Amino acid sequence: MTEDAFITFPKGFIATGVHVGLKKTDAPDFACIASKSPCRVAGVYTTNLVKGHSLKRSIDLVNSETTFHAVLINSGNANACIGRQGIEDANRIAKTFSSEFGCNESEVLTFSTGVIGQRMPIDLITAAMPNVVKNISETAESAHLAMHAIMTTDTVEKEAAAQIECHEGVVRIAGIAKGSGMIHPNMATMISVITTDVDMDDSLLSSLLKRITRTTYNRVSVDGDTSVCDSVIIMANGQSGVHIEEHSEAFALFESALYDICEDLARKIAADGEGATKLIEVNVVGAPTEKDAYLCVLSVCRSPLVKTAIYGEDANCGRIMTAIGYSGAQFDPEKVDIYLGSLPVYKDGCALSFDESVAKDILSQKEIGIEIHLNAGDFNDRMWTCDFTHDYVTINGSYRS
Amino acid sequence: MTEDAFITFPKGFIATGVHVGLKKTDAPDFACIASKSPCRVAGVYTTNLVKGHSLKRSIDLVNSETTFHAVLINSGNANACIGRQGIEDANRIAKTFSSEFGCNESEVLTFSTGVIGQRMPIDLITAAMPNVVKNISETAESAHLAMHAIMTTDTVEKEAAAQIECHEGVVRIAGIAKGSGMIHPNMATMISVITTDVDMDDSLLSSLLKRITRTTYNRVSVDGDTSVCDSVIIMANGQSGVHIEEHSEAFALFESALYDICEDLARKIAADGEGATKLIEVNVVGAPTEKDAYLCVLSVCRSPLVKTAIYGEDANCGRIMTAIGYSGAQFDPEKVDIYLGSLPVYKDGCALSFDESVAKDILSQKEIGIEIHLNAGDFNDRMWTCDFTHDYVTINGSYRS
Repeated sequence: MTEDAFITFPKGFIATGVHVGLKKTDAPDFACIASKSPCRVAGVYTTNLVKGHSLKRSIDLVNSETTFHAVLINSGNANACIGRQGIEDANRIAKTFSSEFGCNESEVLTFSTGVIGQRMPIDLITAAMPNVVKNISETAESAHLAMHAIMTTDTVEKEAAAQIECHEGVVRIAGIAKGSGMIHPNMATMISVITTDVDMDDSLLSSLLKRITRTTYNRVSVDGDTSVCDSVIIMANGQSGVHIEEHSEAFALFESALYDICEDLARKIAADGEGATKLIEVNVVGAPTEKDAYLCVLSVCRSPLVKTAIYGEDANCGRIMTAIGYSGAQFDPEKVDIYLGSLPVYKDGCALSFDESVAKDILSQKEIGIEIHLNAGDFNDRMWTCDFTHDYVTINGSYRS
Repeated sequence: MTEDAFITFPKGFIATGVHVGLKKTDAPDFACIASKSPCRVAGVYTTNLVKGHSLKRSIDLVNSETTFHAVLINSGNANACIGRQGIEDANRIAKTFSSEFGCNESEVLTFSTGVIGQRMPIDLITAAMPNVVKNISETAESAHLAMHAIMTTDTVEKEAAAQIECHEGVVRIAGIAKGSGMIHPNMATMISVITTDVDMDDSLLSSLLKRITRTTYNRVSVDGDTSVCDSVIIMANGQSGVHIEEHSEAFALFESALYDICEDLARKIAADGEGATKLIEVNVVGAPTEKDAYLCVLSVCRSPLVKTAIYGEDANCGRIMTAIGYSGAQFDPEKVDIYLGSLPVYKDGCALSFDESVAKDILSQKEIGIEIHLNAGDFNDRMWTCDFTHDYVTINGSYRS
């Protein structure tokens, strides 16, 4: 991981974020991340049956085209559930941008995040395209504007970058993400764009992204809601001149660096959950199957009762037992051990008496670890969530207004 | 339904609620509902893999014994996750009660609700048994004390009763319930006891209760958590002298009356969800299968984003589309119509423009209806939930303290 954490850190990438008028404030609300040379793209998308129009267009393009130039993302409006008009609007944005930028319309991917069911002010957006293209650059400042432009209820910046040095040369990777509420495995209201100057085959890039997403972005739950727009996109333009094949030493280095970036961004998303004051990491150890391990971490991370108890710094660990109990996972409750941080709170399914002041100390931290030993097999899983607070209710009681 | 809504309304039932010292206030925290003559019992229990010790004991007894005399319920402590001691404590309560009351220990069922993982103050409870037996009576006053004794974070009374007149005579049914947080299909932190003086076979009673529970108690979701203790129990002592067989006219009357009581109690539980200000009824119409209909109502009722929007009286109906979209149900999003009360807000999967002041009027009511037409088949389902409020977070951030 490097300190130069901006999305244009890899060679040949340029970006910007401008205000086109979708957000009520004057903050940037339209991001462009582009590669000077054509790049490859792989993506992982929301599993929601309802998909936003901008996203549907991009999925189709990634499936049918081979090279791309730019990713455009607007916040403030999801461009979802408005019918044919939604696809036409997405096409029009891509067309206007491409003619200004000088590429094919089909090389421009579109993403939208924000309110569902309202048409975007399309004229405002297309009118801003000359300005977008004029401002696009490889500076860190422009890169940060792109990151800010995709933020909605986010309160902290989410970017990460890494550089690997292998036999064949230096490869750079960088990522930005937005995500705060409506976050749940299989994407949720999360958008992440990763850029890299590696030269890698589409199919290898795609399978790598899927594998890494599974244990990073898809292991974050804020509120159990999964949104209609959202995606992780990786853009690889090959400008490092380093070609990486599977099963090579360089591939292992690349995978590890990409994993670190995705994990870092995923943790930042969980920690910045709407209204959150604490990051919670739940580890389940010793499940009989992979699925049982997943069901347990999911159930604990989704439980409003666990999440409010942690907000209240109340070591009410019976709620953790309860959550794994109804998770659908198979295990023997009388073999379960639970730790809060390093403090044993359950042993063989029985509550232990523990020093409440030690528990309070652990719960007063910004990061809380919950470890659950099922003692029923060899499968583990891990997920991040955040506490459930008064501010979550405030934020989501009046999102549109 | 009758105005005489107390649990001793059917012939031959007696009850009481006393304070034994499990709650911090001096409110009653130990309930007894008994039949003067031996009665039949059927039950539906939590599906949580972790089950409280009092409940486990009762499930075993209902499966092995044929007649019962009393149901004892304490609040303030779930008697769960404390190991062997938990079963011994439940046995000791039943044994002490039975010798005072004059029945067999195996004729006494035990239930507990409250904090998990702490041992009950068993000496306080057993010391109170003479007082419990002394106070037990068929008066409405005693019956109300029983209802109050099972309340935890409940804020309103939940009781209902009905009387049917059939050819063979008059049959009475009454029910009480507690439940507020940790409420979700398949029981949750809910306990309901129903008494009736009907004479009905165990197996018929049991299948009827299961069928009715499916569409009443199991169609309530407050927060998606399912607790370790909870149950619906029906006690039938036959004292009406009316024997009812399946497929008779009397059976249809009995089923309808029992359904009304269960629906009434289930709605009261949803409306009294922790911190709730509104009851939400979600109807899904036209799903391709029964399961798809269920997945849709469940997903909407479980969505914190839908529930906070309704708390904020914000007609953010994109969140309803989103919730059905990730529910796992199969349907065509472009055929979905949604109504808020009687106001059409989505048509063919597209957001309609509607008068926000009309929507605000609907959302300012105490009861909000959401109707979703999938236009994909013939299956319907319905579930109740409540809004998600600041007070929910306050209540559950400090439940133990």
